[in-house]
Amino acid sequence: MNPAFPKVVIFGVGLIGGSFSLALRRELAVTEVVGFGRSTANLEQAKQLGILDRIGSNVASEVGDADLVLIATPVAQMAEIFARIAPHLGPNTLVTDGGSTKGDVVAAARANLGGKIAQFIPAHPIAGTEKSGAAAALAVLYEGRRVVLTPLPENSKESVARVRHAWEECGANVSELTAQQHDEVFAAVSHLPHLLSFALVHDLAQRDNRDQLLSFAASGFRDFTRIAASSPEMWRDISLANREALLKEVKRYADELYVVYHALENNDAAKLEEIFSLAREVRSAWTPQ
Amino acid sequence: MNPAFPKVVIFGVGLIGGSFSLALRRELAVTEVVGFGRSTANLEQAKQLGILDRIGSNVASEVGDADLVLIATPVAQMAEIFARIAPHLGPNTLVTDGGSTKGDVVAAARANLGGKIAQFIPAHPIAGTEKSGAAAALAVLYEGRRVVLTPLPENSKESVARVRHAWEECGANVSELTAQQHDEVFAAVSHLPHLLSFALVHDLAQRDNRDQLLSFAASGFRDFTRIAASSPEMWRDISLANREALLKEVKRYADELYVVYHALENNDAAKLEEIFSLAREVRSAWTPQ
Repeated sequence: MNPAFPKVVIFGVGLIGGSFSLALRRELAVTEVVGFGRSTANLEQAKQLGILDRIGSNVASEVGDADLVLIATPVAQMAEIFARIAPHLGPNTLVTDGGSTKGDVVAAARANLGGKIAQFIPAHPIAGTEKSGAAAALAVLYEGRRVVLTPLPENSKESVARVRHAWEECGANVSELTAQQHDEVFAAVSHLPHLLSFALVHDLAQRDNRDQLLSFAASGFRDFTRIAASSPEMWRDISLANREALLKEVKRYADELYVVYHALENNDAAKLEEIFSLAREVRSAWTPQ
Repeated sequence: MNPAFPKVVIFGVGLIGGSFSLALRRELAVTEVVGFGRSTANLEQAKQLGILDRIGSNVASEVGDADLVLIATPVAQMAEIFARIAPHLGPNTLVTDGGSTKGDVVAAARANLGGKIAQFIPAHPIAGTEKSGAAAALAVLYEGRRVVLTPLPENSKESVARVRHAWEECGANVSELTAQQHDEVFAAVSHLPHLLSFALVHDLAQRDNRDQLLSFAASGFRDFTRIAASSPEMWRDISLANREALLKEVKRYADELYVVYHALENNDAAKLEEIFSLAREVRSAWTPQ
């Protein structure tokens, strides 16, 4: 049986890109994987780990006959990569990405892919990012995890289906949203909680008695602030990339916080219980998909 | 060897009270444990589980010759219990509690114990409370966990040492704060995070697209909101009991949130990275004690 994607080219061979390669290999869905990246040491390691067959040296010659290109660099570097590959993309080459924001990536693609924009099918694999680098890559990273595609009006049904198939081969549950829907949803359920968690720890960190405070923090604090140990650079970029939706969410949350403050200030036991009860009910009924 | 506390009386035989009994029994630190509570079914179960020797029927006759009384009911019920035991406490009976706020418990004790206030040594065992009832009690619940005593000026050194010893027999690491310090510390590291987590889920819960939003929530959301599944009644009571300190914390947090909002609004990448970096540094260096 021929593999679904004989040649795959990956820009950014870290946790996301490396795991994509390992997962496709495991399914025998790929013959040759070529990698590009900023760190030669990381690319060498990826080759040793069986993630890459070759380290790419010439973008022009590699992307022309590729079946699929995955851009899995930090989002801020994607515009430049779109510009580098645009002139050389073959007519049958599809492009997808691993960025956790979509509006900005789509804008960068439109600005740089020009007439080849129909070949780009944006994706957001929702997979852990505490660790980074090729060494962290896992064939099972996407197993049962969600991947959100945000297809463009220009994409053909066949192209979307083909990129969906690639992510499904990785074991992911693939769904579709518009880029705007995507960014609004993730501002609410991911970006806002990260901001709130960073803010709490930052506030405590600036106090004279911070060591005393932290010495009494327990499991509630531990879980609430786990995401405050996330990469500052990555979350700076995500926050700015999804700035508009995130500002709306912070404003909305500040309003909500005022309602809670007001209830507490007025000793409004019934209102507090109502707020906490609805939250408990909804949180208890929820399970991650 | 004689046990350190031949007779222990427990009001509220749930997770906190039941685990206290099981831990003291394991250490052979107690001969007889008598329990009082609102639910007869729960008390019967506690007896079957070996937590209680007897279900108490007469407060007057039980607390007079007790070595130690633990009040482990919800904080809101403690005033009434102090009033019930006050006339009957023997001169050598010490009283401690398991409340997670201390200023209000001390006030209730002062108002109801009168001349016997020196016999009350307030305590806050920092132990999980997701589950409740005697069936949830564990001999190891306090193993390696912190218990904070907030001694009163009236307490003798010997009385404080004796109550400290009881909690240490349970395996706890005991430390001391004033009641006010305690309430300020826990407003910052426990009560505020609970309020923030409840508020986030409550806000999402009220939206038309809440099912869609929740379907894309992942592990960051899961951990951030774990404490939003806590008991609404308990957190209503804690919030109100520690109202003053908690209002200050919410106000302070709202100011912090405004700083983050402002940085994002102004596309201030350096400021965002500075906030996130300090938070990450402090959170990464922290481990629960």
